[in-house]
This record gives sequence, C-alpha cells and structure tokens, in this order.
Amino acid sequence: MTAMTAPLRRTALVLLCAATAATAAAAQAPDSISHLIGGEPFRQARAFIKADYERFVRELIALNEIPAPPFKEERRARAYLAMLKENGLTDVEMDQEGNVMGVRRGSGGAPMLAVLAHLDTVFPEGTDVKVRREGTRLIAPGIGDDTRALALMLSMIRAMNAAKLATASDILFVGNVGEEGEGDLRGVKYLLRSGKYKDRIKLFLAIDGGDQGGITRGGVGSKRYRVTFKGPGGHSYGAFGLVNPAYAMAASMAKLSDVQVPSAPRTTYNVGVVSGGTSVNSIPSEVSMDVDIRSESCAELKKVDETFLGIVKSSVADENRARSTREGSITADPKVIGERPCGETPMSAPILKTTVAAVQAFGLTPSFGIGSTDSNIPMSLGIPALTIGRGGPGGRAHSPDEWTDVEPKGVIQSIEIALAIVLAVAGAR
Amino acid sequence: MTAMTAPLRRTALVLLCAATAATAAAAQAPDSISHLIGGEPFRQARAFIKADYERFVRELIALNEIPAPPFKEERRARAYLAMLKENGLTDVEMDQEGNVMGVRRGSGGAPMLAVLAHLDTVFPEGTDVKVRREGTRLIAPGIGDDTRALALMLSMIRAMNAAKLATASDILFVGNVGEEGEGDLRGVKYLLRSGKYKDRIKLFLAIDGGDQGGITRGGVGSKRYRVTFKGPGGHSYGAFGLVNPAYAMAASMAKLSDVQVPSAPRTTYNVGVVSGGTSVNSIPSEVSMDVDIRSESCAELKKVDETFLGIVKSSVADENRARSTREGSITADPKVIGERPCGETPMSAPILKTTVAAVQAFGLTPSFGIGSTDSNIPMSLGIPALTIGRGGPGGRAHSPDEWTDVEPKGVIQSIEIALAIVLAVAGAR
Repeated sequence: MTAMTAPLRRTALVLLCAATAATAAAAQAPDSISHLIGGEPFRQARAFIKADYERFVRELIALNEIPAPPFKEERRARAYLAMLKENGLTDVEMDQEGNVMGVRRGSGGAPMLAVLAHLDTVFPEGTDVKVRREGTRLIAPGIGDDTRALALMLSMIRAMNAAKLATASDILFVGNVGEEGEGDLRGVKYLLRSGKYKDRIKLFLAIDGGDQGGITRGGVGSKRYRVTFKGPGGHSYGAFGLVNPAYAMAASMAKLSDVQVPSAPRTTYNVGVVSGGTSVNSIPSEVSMDVDIRSESCAELKKVDETFLGIVKSSVADENRARSTREGSITADPKVIGERPCGETPMSAPILKTTVAAVQAFGLTPSFGIGSTDSNIPMSLGIPALTIGRGGPGGRAHSPDEWTDVEPKGVIQSIEIALAIVLAVAGAR
Repeated sequence: MTAMTAPLRRTALVLLCAATAATAAAAQAPDSISHLIGGEPFRQARAFIKADYERFVRELIALNEIPAPPFKEERRARAYLAMLKENGLTDVEMDQEGNVMGVRRGSGGAPMLAVLAHLDTVFPEGTDVKVRREGTRLIAPGIGDDTRALALMLSMIRAMNAAKLATASDILFVGNVGEEGEGDLRGVKYLLRSGKYKDRIKLFLAIDGGDQGGITRGGVGSKRYRVTFKGPGGHSYGAFGLVNPAYAMAASMAKLSDVQVPSAPRTTYNVGVVSGGTSVNSIPSEVSMDVDIRSESCAELKKVDETFLGIVKSSVADENRARSTREGSITADPKVIGERPCGETPMSAPILKTTVAAVQAFGLTPSFGIGSTDSNIPMSLGIPALTIGRGGPGGRAHSPDEWTDVEPKGVIQSIEIALAIVLAVAGAR
C-alpha cells in the first residue's frame, strides 16, 4: 500500500455525511455474518487456520526472501503461481503483465470476486530481503507490505478447501504486480482493462492495509507528468537574448506554486525532480520537471490538472514573447508518466456494508480511509472495491527495518477476519 | 580563446571614443617599429623563420597529438617544457599549477614581459586528436586554439636566438594551463597571483586569437554560480504544504529572467543547468542551478551580480513565507564556480600603441575586441595586457573539425608579426 491514508480527522468528515447509510448497513448485515461465522463450516475453517499457523509463517518468510523489486516481480510471481496451484485453484496462470492468479469456483449465483495481494515491494534490486526474527516480530523489507497478505491468502484458500466452504461467486485469487510507485498500478490496470476476466470481475477486494479495522473505500487520484521544455539553445554570451527553456519551466513552477488547493477534499501538487542543460555557459536546449498532482476528489484533480497544463502553455508563450525566437521557439511536452484514477465506493455499497459487519463481528471498530491502492482502478471503473487489512501489528513499511508481528493469536484472527469478509462478499451461506 | 569576441559593430563604438588617442599612438610609434623591422637582425630572423617552416609544422602536429583536456594538460606540458629547454631558455620549469615556462634574458632596462600560449584544449579525454591534412589545411581538435600559438612561440624563440635579437625586458615564455571553460583561467591566476614571477611581470601578451589584425584589449568579466537550494523534503502528498526548494529556485530564475541589461556594454546572464530532487512524489530536499553572468563593463557585472544575489535571497524568503517551515526552512547557498575578472587595457597604453604599430607595419588594419581570455587576469590587476593573434586562416574552433591553414607564406608572416610585437613591447632596438 502506498503510504497515503488520510488522517482520521479528515475522513471523519466523510463519515459524518454518510453516517446514516453506514449505520443502516451495519444494522442489517450482522445477522447473516453471525450466521456465517457461527456455522459449522466456518468453525472447521478456524480450526484449520490455527493448525496451519506454522506453515503460514514458513511461507511468509519463504516468499519474502524472493526479491520482488518494481518491474522485477517475476521470480516471486512464479513461486506464488506454484503455491496457488498447489492449493487447488483452477485455471492457474500468469497473464501478460505478470500477474499470477487462479480461480476457486462458486455456484455461479453471484458475479466474480477478485481478491488480491500485491507481489511487488518498493525495494530495489540488491536489497537484503533476508528475514530476521526478534521474538514474535519478523523484520525484513516488504515483510508486511504486502508479503504478509500473500501468505494470508494462501492460508485462507486452504481453510476454505479444508472446510469445504462454498460461495455463490467464483473467486479469482491474484498475486498482482506493479502496485508500488512507478509500477503505477499496472497489474490491476491490465487485469481490469485487458485481462481475460476484465468483464467478469464485479467485486474487488485488495488485501493491502495494516489494522483490519481500517477500510480504504476511496481512491486518491493522481496524475504525474514529466514536462520537457525544448528550445534552440546557444552560447550563454554570444546568443544571449534567445529564448531559454529553463525560464519557461521556472515560470511554470512559480505559477504552479501559487495555485490554491482545498485541504478538504485533500488536494496537492509537487515539483519533485528538475533536470537539464549542458553547461553553465550554454543556454539549455532541453530541461524537464516531474510533477505530481493528487486529490481525494475527481473534480479537484481535474481542475488542478487543467490549471497546470494551462500554466505550462502560457509560460511557454510568455517566454516566446519575452526573448528572441529567431533560432527557434520554446515548446513544452507534458508527458503523462503516472495516472491513478480517483474514485470511491459509496457507504451504501453492499460490499462495504458486508465488510463493516464482518469487521464488527470480530469486535473491531471500522474506520474509513482514502488512499492510493490497487482499488483505485476498480473504483474508477465503477466496480465496488475496498482495500482491507492484512492484520498486524506492523510498521516501518517502505523502510529497510519494516516489521510485522506474527504472534499466533493475532495471525489466526487476521486470517479469520479476511476469510469472513471474502466469504460474506462472495455470498457464502 | 573562449569564443566571445564582441561583434565589430559594437566595438566600433568603443573605438570611436578612443579614436584620438589611438591615432596619436599609431602616428608616433611606426618610426621605431620601422627601424626595428627594417634592421639587419630582424632580416636575419625573417630568414630563419622561413627556413624553420617545416619544423614549425612538425612541432605543431606533434604537440597537437598529445591530448590536453582541461585539468589534464600534464603530458603536453612536459613535452612543451622539454622544447622550451631545447630552445635555449633559462630557468625552465613547471610551476605548482602546471604551467611550464622559461626566461629569455633581456638587458634589464625594462620590466618583465610574459608571453603566453595555452596548453589546454576544450576537448575531453578520449577525443581523437590525430591531425589530418587536406592541402595546406591541418584538421584536428585544438589545432588552432591554441596549439598553433604554442608552435609559433617555439619558432619565434629560435628566430630571436638565431638573429641574436636583444631586448630590454626579460621575456617569460609560458605554456599555460586552464584557459578554457572550467579551467577558469587557473594557470594565469596562479602565475600572476601566486607564482614566483607575480611581482615581476609588468607586461603581458597572450597569443590566442586568430587573425592578427584583431587585438583583444578588453576582458569580459564573468561570474558563475552553482546555487544550491535546500529544504526539509517530504512526501509529496503526506507533507504537502511544506516549503519546496524547487519553488524558491523557480522564483529566482523567473525574476532573473526579467532583469533588464544593457546591450552596450554587452551584459548577459544565463541559467545553464538545473538539477535536483529524488522522485516525482517527494518534495525535493535539494535542487541547484548553474548561473553565468557576464559583462564588458565591470560596473554592470557588479550590478547584475548583486541584483542576482538579492533575487535569490528574496525568493528564499518568499518561499519560507508562502509555505510551512515546521519541518525546516529553505536555504540557498550561492557558490562561486567561476570568476573571470573584467578589465581593459586603455587605448593610450604603450603596449597597445606598440602592438597597433607593429600590426600596421605589416599592412594589417587593427581592430579591437573585448573577449574572455587569459588577459582578463592581468587586466583586472592593472597590468597592461593584450591578446594577439596566432595567424590563420582557421576555423571551427571548439569543434572536432577545427582547422588551421599552414600555407607557408601565411605561417611565416604570422610568426614575423608576433615576433615584431614581442620585440617592440620588450624594447628591442
């Protein structure tokens, strides 16, 4: 999960607006959830999960020790593919983007549910991914985010099989690529826009949060540009007076820095990287800047995006007016280098009501966040989607001393909760 | 020679102002020059130069084929040192900066004259410096600028010795380092500020122009900065609202681009290189820009320099007001990465009158330019200095297909003219 869950204070506002609906949902759903959790099959599943604990830990360590840097998830993907197959899924395969997946058939009485954990970590090639153990803590880059979810998914599948839990939905279990950073959600984009199940997946659960009380129901949208400004260049002294692309870029940055954005819905922009030019005594022929725009609101994102593109255009025009274009003019090419569509799953959506009920059934208090996760894609496509927790406690995600706690009770409960959510959303009885 | 001689149209203005003095000088000096050139010793020197032609070409090629990239002139310097020694100079040595030099003693009746040609080329290590010949053209990187002057100096010394030409001044012949680009005139800076002859050199001639009618009598001053802007950095989304050093830099660039400078005296500025930042989704903790400021006028240079530093300061202050400094403030560190002091040798200076007369004695029409050469340093120190031509024709300096023409008549005359200037300035009879 990319670290961007909105502070609770802010999401509380969102909650207030939707409080009635949520309460109504929570008031309705518990019955069937209680029924599910109280039933004999689920009891058997719980017993299985308990017995499966050592294997969960073993698999978590084994998976973590297969490096999965962005765009280089293949080794871990192949290993995970084999594990999905071993656990009895059908149609186990790797798609063209590198996602691995398999199906657990349902009765067909409900649309397909996709359940995902992402294979990739933020850590570059060469990072030491060996797992260290201190008491009940496992410490290693990626151990929580999101390797723990990969291991959880395997234990969950085994429990479903052991307890012969039937669902109405076919469930597609996916270990997906490209969730982190420059991966730009490429795995899920492929799955839902081009993959063979793109028209079948109608429900979506990404297991990619920490605490299972926290439910990510909104996707922060983002748009990223590398804007390249070009001009004729020339000698700083001999050709002084010619247009300079660095000035057009500077004006763009300066004007962008003056743009006012709302703090709720949270909306941001950033110039993160600048580069270009050949020497101090040459007018640059090319400079570029990397810009990141984000918002919890699709409308605000669009507004800032358009404002920004207008700023670039006017800054280029201004520079072409301010200095000589006799050797050539300044041009700007804003290339999209990242796009995470925004979206949200409404508080009234059945998938959310069901998930809230399941979380509450285990005594947790649900809280709702807006983040940037694989769920952004289905949300933007109108597919009901949530990102749920993998359990914990854990911390220091995206740092070399990332950790996750595997004290047995916590692990077992986290798999139970995830299982309850998946079963409830998939229409188990 | 760094390519920046001012266009003739502009220098004509300078000339007009000084026309009376120049005419007066030219009216006086020819007598003693005619006397010198018409005398028997100079006739013998001319005969020697003619006979020395093949050796000049051979040495020019040999020197050119020893690479001399900026800061890596040592191999060529050692070879040149041996040649200076071989030609009978005394006190031949390499100084701490890497300049090589030797003295030709005079009678002591006049102060020391330094005559320089620079060893370094603009071409980086690995450049093919093999000389190609097409008719009377020699083609190779650096063949004109300034290797031809190195070879000319050797032939000139031999001619003086062969003809037993005596001077009042001791003459220090120097093959110096660091004229080009980032060398930042380090060779001459050392020679005149720290070297053993620093208090003795009172006249200065750099052989580093093309056509010998062109005399560089003014030094364009330049000041170069790398300004590093630092801030606390942070996540583009999570830490939005913190100060961003890229915005402070952008504001500096935008304000600089609005600064109005005179076209006469020619004054320029440039942002040549920008860099910094770690990723599109991080607020940069550090960005930098390389800035070049130049002027034919010391006063204008100082003015733009001060304006620029003020702009940087106010842009930083503005950014620290515009956004939050709770995690730290923006700072800017403008580090001087190059400084060529400005200066000029007045039209009334004897060194200029004498040089004009010598050039005219060979039927050439003198023209006066302002440039950026080794002479900037003595000019800034009040030492009468000029940069004179090495002869030609030639072209494409600083490009891989640089060429110089070695048709015998032209070569011989160019050495004669340089010799006449050196002798006249050094007080030969």
